[in-house]
Amino acid sequence: MIVEMRKDTTQDEIDDVIYRARSLGMDVQLNSGTDKTVVAILGKDTGKLSTDVFAVLPGVESVSRIMKPYKLASREFKMADSIVSVDDIEIGGRRIVVMAGPCAVESEEQLMEATMVVKSAGACIVRGGAFKPRTSPFSFQGLEKKGLELLAESRKRFGAPVITEVVDPHDVDRVAEYVDILQIGARNMQNFSLLTQVGKKKCPAVLKRGLSATITEWLTAADYLLAEGNDKVILCERGIRTFENSVRFSLDISSIPVVKRFSHLPLIVDPSHAAGHYSFVPAIAKAAVAAGADGLLIEVHPNPKEALVDGLQALTPSDFSRLMKELRAIAISVGRYI
Amino acid sequence: MIVEMRKDTTQDEIDDVIYRARSLGMDVQLNSGTDKTVVAILGKDTGKLSTDVFAVLPGVESVSRIMKPYKLASREFKMADSIVSVDDIEIGGRRIVVMAGPCAVESEEQLMEATMVVKSAGACIVRGGAFKPRTSPFSFQGLEKKGLELLAESRKRFGAPVITEVVDPHDVDRVAEYVDILQIGARNMQNFSLLTQVGKKKCPAVLKRGLSATITEWLTAADYLLAEGNDKVILCERGIRTFENSVRFSLDISSIPVVKRFSHLPLIVDPSHAAGHYSFVPAIAKAAVAAGADGLLIEVHPNPKEALVDGLQALTPSDFSRLMKELRAIAISVGRYI
Amino acid sequence: MIVEMRKDTTQDEIDDVIYRARSLGMDVQLNSGTDKTVVAILGKDTGKLSTDVFAVLPGVESVSRIMKPYKLASREFKMADSIVSVDDIEIGGRRIVVMAGPCAVESEEQLMEATMVVKSAGACIVRGGAFKPRTSPFSFQGLEKKGLELLAESRKRFGAPVITEVVDPHDVDRVAEYVDILQIGARNMQNFSLLTQVGKKKCPAVLKRGLSATITEWLTAADYLLAEGNDKVILCERGIRTFENSVRFSLDISSIPVVKRFSHLPLIVDPSHAAGHYSFVPAIAKAAVAAGADGLLIEVHPNPKEALVDGLQALTPSDFSRLMKELRAIAISVGRYI
Amino acid sequence: MIVEMRKDTTQDEIDDVIYRARSLGMDVQLNSGTDKTVVAILGKDTGKLSTDVFAVLPGVESVSRIMKPYKLASREFKMADSIVSVDDIEIGGRRIVVMAGPCAVESEEQLMEATMVVKSAGACIVRGGAFKPRTSPFSFQGLEKKGLELLAESRKRFGAPVITEVVDPHDVDRVAEYVDILQIGARNMQNFSLLTQVGKKKCPAVLKRGLSATITEWLTAADYLLAEGNDKVILCERGIRTFENSVRFSLDISSIPVVKRFSHLPLIVDPSHAAGHYSFVPAIAKAAVAAGADGLLIEVHPNPKEALVDGLQALTPSDFSRLMKELRAIAISVGRYI
Repeated sequence: MIVEMRKDTTQDEIDDVIYRARSLGMDVQLNSGTDKTVVAILGKDTGKLSTDVFAVLPGVESVSRIMKPYKLASREFKMADSIVSVDDIEIGGRRIVVMAGPCAVESEEQLMEATMVVKSAGACIVRGGAFKPRTSPFSFQGLEKKGLELLAESRKRFGAPVITEVVDPHDVDRVAEYVDILQIGARNMQNFSLLTQVGKKKCPAVLKRGLSATITEWLTAADYLLAEGNDKVILCERGIRTFENSVRFSLDISSIPVVKRFSHLPLIVDPSHAAGHYSFVPAIAKAAVAAGADGLLIEVHPNPKEALVDGLQALTPSDFSRLMKELRAIAISVGRYI
Repeated sequence: MIVEMRKDTTQDEIDDVIYRARSLGMDVQLNSGTDKTVVAILGKDTGKLSTDVFAVLPGVESVSRIMKPYKLASREFKMADSIVSVDDIEIGGRRIVVMAGPCAVESEEQLMEATMVVKSAGACIVRGGAFKPRTSPFSFQGLEKKGLELLAESRKRFGAPVITEVVDPHDVDRVAEYVDILQIGARNMQNFSLLTQVGKKKCPAVLKRGLSATITEWLTAADYLLAEGNDKVILCERGIRTFENSVRFSLDISSIPVVKRFSHLPLIVDPSHAAGHYSFVPAIAKAAVAAGADGLLIEVHPNPKEALVDGLQALTPSDFSRLMKELRAIAISVGRYI
Repeated sequence: MIVEMRKDTTQDEIDDVIYRARSLGMDVQLNSGTDKTVVAILGKDTGKLSTDVFAVLPGVESVSRIMKPYKLASREFKMADSIVSVDDIEIGGRRIVVMAGPCAVESEEQLMEATMVVKSAGACIVRGGAFKPRTSPFSFQGLEKKGLELLAESRKRFGAPVITEVVDPHDVDRVAEYVDILQIGARNMQNFSLLTQVGKKKCPAVLKRGLSATITEWLTAADYLLAEGNDKVILCERGIRTFENSVRFSLDISSIPVVKRFSHLPLIVDPSHAAGHYSFVPAIAKAAVAAGADGLLIEVHPNPKEALVDGLQALTPSDFSRLMKELRAIAISVGRYI
Repeated sequence: MIVEMRKDTTQDEIDDVIYRARSLGMDVQLNSGTDKTVVAILGKDTGKLSTDVFAVLPGVESVSRIMKPYKLASREFKMADSIVSVDDIEIGGRRIVVMAGPCAVESEEQLMEATMVVKSAGACIVRGGAFKPRTSPFSFQGLEKKGLELLAESRKRFGAPVITEVVDPHDVDRVAEYVDILQIGARNMQNFSLLTQVGKKKCPAVLKRGLSATITEWLTAADYLLAEGNDKVILCERGIRTFENSVRFSLDISSIPVVKRFSHLPLIVDPSHAAGHYSFVPAIAKAAVAAGADGLLIEVHPNPKEALVDGLQALTPSDFSRLMKELRAIAISVGRYI
């Protein structure tokens, strides 16, 4: 941590900074320029310190963080790529893992048809929402328990692992009984009670990036899961909020190389929620694979026209099937496979 | 809702749109321009419909919403300003209500001293966090139950109502036993389980704007509370995430006249979390009062240098006292008082 | 254009809207819902009208635009993909056109070596800045005339067309004498004097997206060039400003399918300015090709460590050479070639 | 400047950093933590250095700037508030200076009526655009020379100084003959040719903040004017681009205390372009005065319904007159006057 003192600072003020740093177990090195004094705070755990600890002291102009605030999710903590296994599927390995299915589980017929369709096109994990966080209280909120049962049934019949979102910290145990992967939605990325519970559960978890979270905040949220001992964390980029309004969210394609540089965790991409419109999904999905994503989370509905939630961003079975062919070609061109 | 058809649309596609609209109980009016056909979907409840319902149909180019998606929070639903009463304090009336106190309750001594200080300077409601949602799992997370007890004790001793944040839907009942106003934090603005529980509790609630929520989304989140029968909703603007990095969040000053135009709910402003630095708090607080806010939520700490959380944004007792004097002058200049 | 009237509007106010629309040569259709009246303004040229024309009238609640404000750049105006030819190179065809070279022309030796390197790796157009718009007045501003002469010399020696940025409307003629393609930089996307001059020049022009321009504003800026009769317009996505700070700009990958849907113009991508760091450039470049970009604009420097401008985002010759191999594989996987 | 080395860096790499710093005339201090080495680069002019100079070197993980990149605009360079005088009006003193008038000069009648109206309500400087940068090429672009002549005529008749925008660097001399203050528009904040010319002219200049410029970039752009010897620079906050779409731009109210802390230059606020709608202008204007702005730039039109440009954001004469009364009360409450 770098503490810049004001031009007109006094020796006493500098001493206060040094004293506080030492009392927190940190080392200090003083850099006295011609113009101003800069104090470097050194130590293993400066990432855990708030910059406020020094910024509140008199005579301090600014405090800059050098160490990242996340620790367990960082590549400095663990150099090698992490791989999360679900059954015999490895997420974060050479295979690009496609998870697909409807936004919401609507009925037995809908989910089974969707499962059949996405499995036969090459998806290996099935998605479907039982609890739907909806912007308006007047919208369809999901089948809840019935939805979970249908996901378990789909799993039993077709043998593919299933993923669903959990929204309430007190539901974690219950939901984990029915499904293989718990999803923490973008709006809950900093719902710390929920993170703690999913961390304790130690089951595979997809952590979606908050729609206005920096990558640093996202990886720090991952630390909540890792700190509870859950190392089966999969990150999911799903678009960030910007001023551009032709899509629902702007998929942050550069988050892929950035996360790969700074973290060991596997990273998948959700092109559907970013695009908000089926016609933009294929281009974004292909870009994600080319840029190095470890998987995709795609919405497919047997009949988008009749979808109860987000039909506009769902691919039809035939569009999904065509996209999978294109994705396979790109995967090969980057030395991977689907 | 306005459905724009593609240039080359067919009569069948137009008929499909009309059929779907009528099956949802809506009226339809057709506008056939020289260039393209535009279908207006009319009815009392188009605000509740998702635009996807029409956008998924073939031949549709775009769908624009005319009615706002929120209903109960809107001034079209209720014309007169709402006033929320807490004891004998009216929020939303002529008096500008200042809520102040430390970010986190840290100890009995700290809270009692803070209460004394803010009360004597003119604040009429005391704030203090017992549960602190923190970006990093390694940071101080609040005194929890002990914090609630101290808030209740402060209330008993000093007679001023207290406000604290609730973060878990299952804690709503418990927290409401100790405090007068429940706060829903910015990161939980779309935590719909939490909104529903606080809605059911029917106690005064401050709903902070999500850090990347549009005003429309914020008012739609308020509908979650109102729909459960809780009409004691107070909105709180606390800054939005933008590219500007000299402050933690950019306080959206125009949200004040915008909310006042479109909603009947009272609106307060939190300059402390927006600024992130004590030196910027007074200017923002004064601007908020001049722009028409109904109150302020300000962080004050007896000794910011020793604060466990967010010390940099806390005012000292003497700075707060000076600010209150300045705010009183501005309040009078806009026909109100503190 | 859709004019929503207030709930309590009068017949006179509605008549005023109708009168104004007709006086502007537009058709009008009235949609009288149970709740409020909505007036549809129809006609070929509603895209050219400002929404203010109606929004200022009493009784109007809001005005929504249906037609896009751009015209000549839109696919509704011209259905087929446009191809811009420079010598025998077609931009917008099956070949993915790579333009590469140093950010700034620094010396004869540097430019000739860079040209040799990028040509032999497969780039077919050479980039190099002679006029450098710099954030600070104390930074290197480019070789200006000398830079232009060196670009012309490179062209003569190596036979590859060259592209350079023009920053002053009065320099357009002069710069066009030396180079094949004029670049309008991101900060000048709405420098309308410059757009008009480049439009009049009718030479191939790359129009970079402004760092906070919506796609709609970008295509409307392209209309400035097209309206002057210059149909050799190439769009260039180079990242937008967001809150994310791990990169200089967030490349908007979804702009590729969005532009392809709404415009006939060819579109290239600049991964270097978006990333701001060489290590992120390859992933973004590959993503762009996979998503359907028609070309790339990449910074390559013989010795980035000694670059006078933006050395951190420049690829070394060997990194560029490796990237070109990877790009070729991806191009083939999407049915194109480099 | 703080250079963070990678964990596994070598002594040679550290030496390279030191060597480069010394060769640039900087001092170096080494901070060897238990975990990694951090090199502090010290010296008077580190603000002028690009971080790239060190970031390109092998073994470097990151480079953070401590010194701000702007110099002449900073309060460290000049401690006392700058005051810009136009005739006998001081901008940056105790008086809050209101500049008002129509967006565009449309006719003699319109400008003279507007001038009369704003002067009698208490504005002391008249605004009016002769050259209008417009998003679309099909919109009204201003009266140009005729507009300048009318501004000069207004000045002569009513005695109030006039301000107008200049958009082309080659027009600076010509425009400065007719008006008292040159305005550099938001879209030209980084049009460096224009900045340089206005800098050379040494006449009073309003520098609007770019719609996606950080405060640091804005003050660095001001350095372009100051570096040419023009010290009559007035900054103007006019809203930034964010995701919020209920207004055209989000006025960044915290920019007022931030600029006042870091710069000595006077700062005015344009609430009209930010709001985009007349009904939001008064609240923003009042907030700006309460927060410490030195002046306002407000659009007023004798008849907004007939305005050729941006009529929706223009105040009517009576609305402006009412606002001025309210502003006077607020000015007094913060110890100033209008």
